[in-house]
Amino acid sequence: MNESFTEKFRGRHALISGGLGFIGSNLARALTEAGARVTIVDCELDGSGANSANLAGLEGRIELIRADLRDTGRISPVLGDVNFVFHLAAQTGHMDSMRDPQRDLTNNALGTAALLDACRNSCPRAMWVFASTRQLYGPPRALPVAEEHPLQPPDVNAVGKLCAEELLGVYMRVYGLNAVSLRLTNTYGPGMRVRDARQMFLGLWIGNVLRSRPITVYGDGLQRRDLVFVDDVVEAFMVCADEKLRGRTFNVGSQETIDLRSLAELVRRLGASDSRVEFIDFPADRKAIDIGDYVGDYNSIRAATGWQARTPLERGLTTTIAYYRAQLAAYLEQS
Amino acid sequence: MNESFTEKFRGRHALISGGLGFIGSNLARALTEAGARVTIVDCELDGSGANSANLAGLEGRIELIRADLRDTGRISPVLGDVNFVFHLAAQTGHMDSMRDPQRDLTNNALGTAALLDACRNSCPRAMWVFASTRQLYGPPRALPVAEEHPLQPPDVNAVGKLCAEELLGVYMRVYGLNAVSLRLTNTYGPGMRVRDARQMFLGLWIGNVLRSRPITVYGDGLQRRDLVFVDDVVEAFMVCADEKLRGRTFNVGSQETIDLRSLAELVRRLGASDSRVEFIDFPADRKAIDIGDYVGDYNSIRAATGWQARTPLERGLTTTIAYYRAQLAAYLEQS
Repeated sequence: MNESFTEKFRGRHALISGGLGFIGSNLARALTEAGARVTIVDCELDGSGANSANLAGLEGRIELIRADLRDTGRISPVLGDVNFVFHLAAQTGHMDSMRDPQRDLTNNALGTAALLDACRNSCPRAMWVFASTRQLYGPPRALPVAEEHPLQPPDVNAVGKLCAEELLGVYMRVYGLNAVSLRLTNTYGPGMRVRDARQMFLGLWIGNVLRSRPITVYGDGLQRRDLVFVDDVVEAFMVCADEKLRGRTFNVGSQETIDLRSLAELVRRLGASDSRVEFIDFPADRKAIDIGDYVGDYNSIRAATGWQARTPLERGLTTTIAYYRAQLAAYLEQS
Repeated sequence: MNESFTEKFRGRHALISGGLGFIGSNLARALTEAGARVTIVDCELDGSGANSANLAGLEGRIELIRADLRDTGRISPVLGDVNFVFHLAAQTGHMDSMRDPQRDLTNNALGTAALLDACRNSCPRAMWVFASTRQLYGPPRALPVAEEHPLQPPDVNAVGKLCAEELLGVYMRVYGLNAVSLRLTNTYGPGMRVRDARQMFLGLWIGNVLRSRPITVYGDGLQRRDLVFVDDVVEAFMVCADEKLRGRTFNVGSQETIDLRSLAELVRRLGASDSRVEFIDFPADRKAIDIGDYVGDYNSIRAATGWQARTPLERGLTTTIAYYRAQLAAYLEQS
């Protein structure tokens, strides 16, 4: 553990919304190791990354409130001495957001509004870091995509995340809230959802490879991505929990890019699997919200904080596959 | 009535959400006069502009569904043959949106999502015109403000309206919806809320002048505005209900500007009132979301459609004050 993290977080109280989920649980572990007192709020939304297996070994060391963010009667009592708010709770599925827009907006926009209001009253000085998404940019007009790229949310999920970013902006300007938004690219690692593609296609691929099932690639598989390993993302959250960065919005991702065809081959090789890689036409409903190639520009966060992704893709994938080789059952049962 | 409107709307079916409200009811009247069949959906939200008095004389000529937009079971059955959707239903109060963010987002963001989804299924070819707001720009960086001005919603109400605009964008790109968004500046005229400042301060001023109560101006009253008369706004909605304008966003307002101090004097003079004009310090909670001077650039809608505001402020105010001289009671009782 980074020594500066111990200094920053030891004895401090961190709230993690969505802390049973993929990134949230990894963050909970890292903050606990840095000596923070961690409280998680998670409603275990169906189809989200919430999974008790994500907190294995941390039982008893973390307070877990199983509640919807809008249930402020349950949440407010623990907020009084909160120093950091890591807001990751969300409905994450892009297709789900198109099938049920109100459910997505209720969880992501109204949920954020509820947490903001509760914290404004109970812990107005807390430092927020919000899990936003590169999805806000829509199909890139040019690569790499920096934070100044115009926003064009391609699906309801991205609209809800934009709405949440803007709510943070209002609370910063009106109430002096301290917040940073991180626009994450595809994040992978232990704890990610593998039962389906609701967090990202790579989870589903890993789940399939480990069961010798085919990996399905949409289109020609030449779409480029810049996947980032969860440990790097967790570090970005911890680095950005800093009042000096108040009001900033940063892209978070890796310099290393790969096309999906090559990624599928890599997953198959690292999984030592006899899975086939299948190419099928893009389903029309997915194509309609697909953003094509995405490569982010990560100079802004590096210039402001020194942070950059450090885990090579092959190493991160090896770690991830090893994790699921041992833990697959607990993730296939996820609701 | 403009002849081209008769040609465009006669025998066509127009849905107006928020049609009991200020602008919606004026639009309902104009569409009915142009020969359209009008259906209104309105849930008479407390604090909104909804008022049965707004439809005086139209009883029996318009179908009125008293329902929340999210009650799609009530709304969907009438959508089948809808040709035009004028979406104006909203929680409009800026201060209210800060006091109860979830209520604002529920009505404005979720309500829009619900209506979009119902229409996608029942009248996918309908032409939409959405009542958005110049509030999206936040405090102007320079005047006049054109549509390219960066967006920085200063309050939760503006966040909800931005969310609604973005939802329309998603439905256009994914489902081929036809829609235009109109970013309205302060609109005034018969039918506006005068019991309080929930629609705009001018309504409250008129209500006060007609009862010889003081008019209260915040700050020095030198803030500039470009108020637009409701008949002009109604015409903009009708002109913009045109598939050729699909995907466009237009500012809607008047070329005529005035500072609030002068406006207060004008209202007092036209009201032939002995009301005093009082200047008080900006209340802190209002100052926090105030946008300062606002003057819009209306070249874009004029270039695309020929529309421009035609009612001089003094004439529009005279009409408005005469209306409330006769009708004040029905508007002071509004919930």
